[in-house]
Amino acid sequence: MAKIAIVYFSGYGHTKKQAEAVHAGAASASGATATLYAIDPEGNLPDSAWDDFDQADAIIYGSPTYMGGPAWQFKKFADASSKRWFTLAWKDKVAGGFTNSASANGDKFSTITYFFTLSQQHGQIWVGTGMKSSNTKADGPDSINWTAGYAGAMAISPADASPDEAPGKGDLETARLYGARIADYAVKTR
Amino acid sequence: MAKIAIVYFSGYGHTKKQAEAVHAGAASASGATATLYAIDPEGNLPDSAWDDFDQADAIIYGSPTYMGGPAWQFKKFADASSKRWFTLAWKDKVAGGFTNSASANGDKFSTITYFFTLSQQHGQIWVGTGMKSSNTKADGPDSINWTAGYAGAMAISPADASPDEAPGKGDLETARLYGARIADYAVKTR
Amino acid sequence: MAKIAIVYFSGYGHTKKQAEAVHAGAASASGATATLYAIDPEGNLPDSAWDDFDQADAIIYGSPTYMGGPAWQFKKFADASSKRWFTLAWKDKVAGGFTNSASANGDKFSTITYFFTLSQQHGQIWVGTGMKSSNTKADGPDSINWTAGYAGAMAISPADASPDEAPGKGDLETARLYGARIADYAVKTR
Amino acid sequence: MAKIAIVYFSGYGHTKKQAEAVHAGAASASGATATLYAIDPEGNLPDSAWDDFDQADAIIYGSPTYMGGPAWQFKKFADASSKRWFTLAWKDKVAGGFTNSASANGDKFSTITYFFTLSQQHGQIWVGTGMKSSNTKADGPDSINWTAGYAGAMAISPADASPDEAPGKGDLETARLYGARIADYAVKTR
Repeated sequence: MAKIAIVYFSGYGHTKKQAEAVHAGAASASGATATLYAIDPEGNLPDSAWDDFDQADAIIYGSPTYMGGPAWQFKKFADASSKRWFTLAWKDKVAGGFTNSASANGDKFSTITYFFTLSQQHGQIWVGTGMKSSNTKADGPDSINWTAGYAGAMAISPADASPDEAPGKGDLETARLYGARIADYAVKTR
Repeated sequence: MAKIAIVYFSGYGHTKKQAEAVHAGAASASGATATLYAIDPEGNLPDSAWDDFDQADAIIYGSPTYMGGPAWQFKKFADASSKRWFTLAWKDKVAGGFTNSASANGDKFSTITYFFTLSQQHGQIWVGTGMKSSNTKADGPDSINWTAGYAGAMAISPADASPDEAPGKGDLETARLYGARIADYAVKTR
Repeated sequence: MAKIAIVYFSGYGHTKKQAEAVHAGAASASGATATLYAIDPEGNLPDSAWDDFDQADAIIYGSPTYMGGPAWQFKKFADASSKRWFTLAWKDKVAGGFTNSASANGDKFSTITYFFTLSQQHGQIWVGTGMKSSNTKADGPDSINWTAGYAGAMAISPADASPDEAPGKGDLETARLYGARIADYAVKTR
Repeated sequence: MAKIAIVYFSGYGHTKKQAEAVHAGAASASGATATLYAIDPEGNLPDSAWDDFDQADAIIYGSPTYMGGPAWQFKKFADASSKRWFTLAWKDKVAGGFTNSASANGDKFSTITYFFTLSQQHGQIWVGTGMKSSNTKADGPDSINWTAGYAGAMAISPADASPDEAPGKGDLETARLYGARIADYAVKTR
């Protein structure tokens, strides 16, 4: 079985919803198992998580976009991964990423680009959404990839929406399809 | 009078609408004059435009986002500006940028970041929108900076919308306010 | 046999040298054939090249960094690839990229990030150098990946160096190893 | 007097050397005072620092590049600045940034681009180095801006070099000139 690790930070629960959708997609892929790893509010993970990452076929990164980039808790995890970087321990593992923020654009692309940059420090193989976007007048937040991420999955959660309300249907389905795509790719190439 | 030059490429007319809104804002600023320069379909500009840029206090860049970056016609202009780069002829001129594309995100941030990178090659001073975004459940395309550009102005024109229909009211007003902000800054600092 | 296409623009011959090194590496991989495609000074390619790309297992992008991004001729090729984007014709093809410029950094990362962004519009799978960098006091331009590209291969050609003199030994060997890595990956995953 | 605040994190002392050079340049500018603020290993600053930032005319950001971006301690500061973002308290303050890492390129541009993105969330005015690079065969680490940052100042400290040895002469002089440029601009425009 291909092992898919999804490591993420969520501040208020919206990115957690997105992570769960990525997980549901990855877990549904034939030949794959998927596990969620939540970075804690101090930017830490249990040692066992690091052991799991070393065994994983794919590591997917997730964080809200705060002040134009990933949350510091995620960056603390990324900096701690330098231990693996020294030996290129994650080389050739599949990578992907997802992010959520309150506004339509709001520098989400900056966070996805950072995930990519991190993955390349590790020598990973990046897999994006592989989707067209829904971009006609008839489309809206319920449409798949209306938020329009190519390199990774993006979601919008308005500032006054609870995690029960947002991300919306389209963003969650996009996350689910993305998780499935990455897992399928990991199964095919392991 | 502070001279504001807005140099842009538009493929189908939507970015032209956005450029005209930036122009209207800049022209409305007390103490400023503003001029639009349209890059032609071959990526060229008349020689007189280059003379004007050399005299300008601010040069604002605009292009649709095509395939994840500015249109090639804009890039041809940027490459031609290397003549000015050799002598740092545009050093300390104010800079800004705007872009339009069919989907909500769709790598617009990549284009704005390129405009910034170009401006820094020239030693220019970058002025972003200076706006918060409209990001509550009650907001939508009619709200100011709902599309949510910070480093520059962003607009959405659905793939099946004519330039009469899109960019929408909120994006055009954002562009107008951005043009006014840059012109005000150029007046204040010249 | 896995087919590796290397499509690049070179203004003065230095990036051509880098492209040839990538090609040599790709062609040396067991089970792979590699072909170079030079974008002409007007930003065009023969129709047959486009047919070849459609059949390729990997498409590698190359351009000098001019004014903080890929040359306009490369961007014209990228914009022309929108025809393939409409049908996601290049989805799941392996991707990579390389760039050369006169100075040590000089915004090379911006060009590599653009290649990545383009590849993700197409739904491609990105493979970086997978190398550590040579970064001790004893290292220099002759060392492998001293220029230190992770997401793609980078090279330095001083402004007064001919294509016979630059890129240097280390950069060319980095390019060769990168070409081999991409080809090996394409063979393994096709 | 224009007040210049330089806020930075340094892990091993090399970025501290760079920060001190930026400070020396800023402090030497006629009509400006400059202060260094070191983010501590837990990512915190004293409350008085935040008060000072609110009064500053320019805020300059500095961090090593770790795993392709600013250190998490810097990002923790950036996330904490969201309190000021809510009220746009730093709008129109001048901004700049600098970074150091062990290899020649090594994703330094990613860190500078993040500093820029942060500054634009705050509505700040970005001032880059305004320098050409030293890029001929005769140039080397002792030359000004040989490392070649345009949007911000870059430095190289080999992995086995102590802070007494690196960053080198050229990088430190580049940092000094950049500090002076930002301070001069803040004086001129306050």
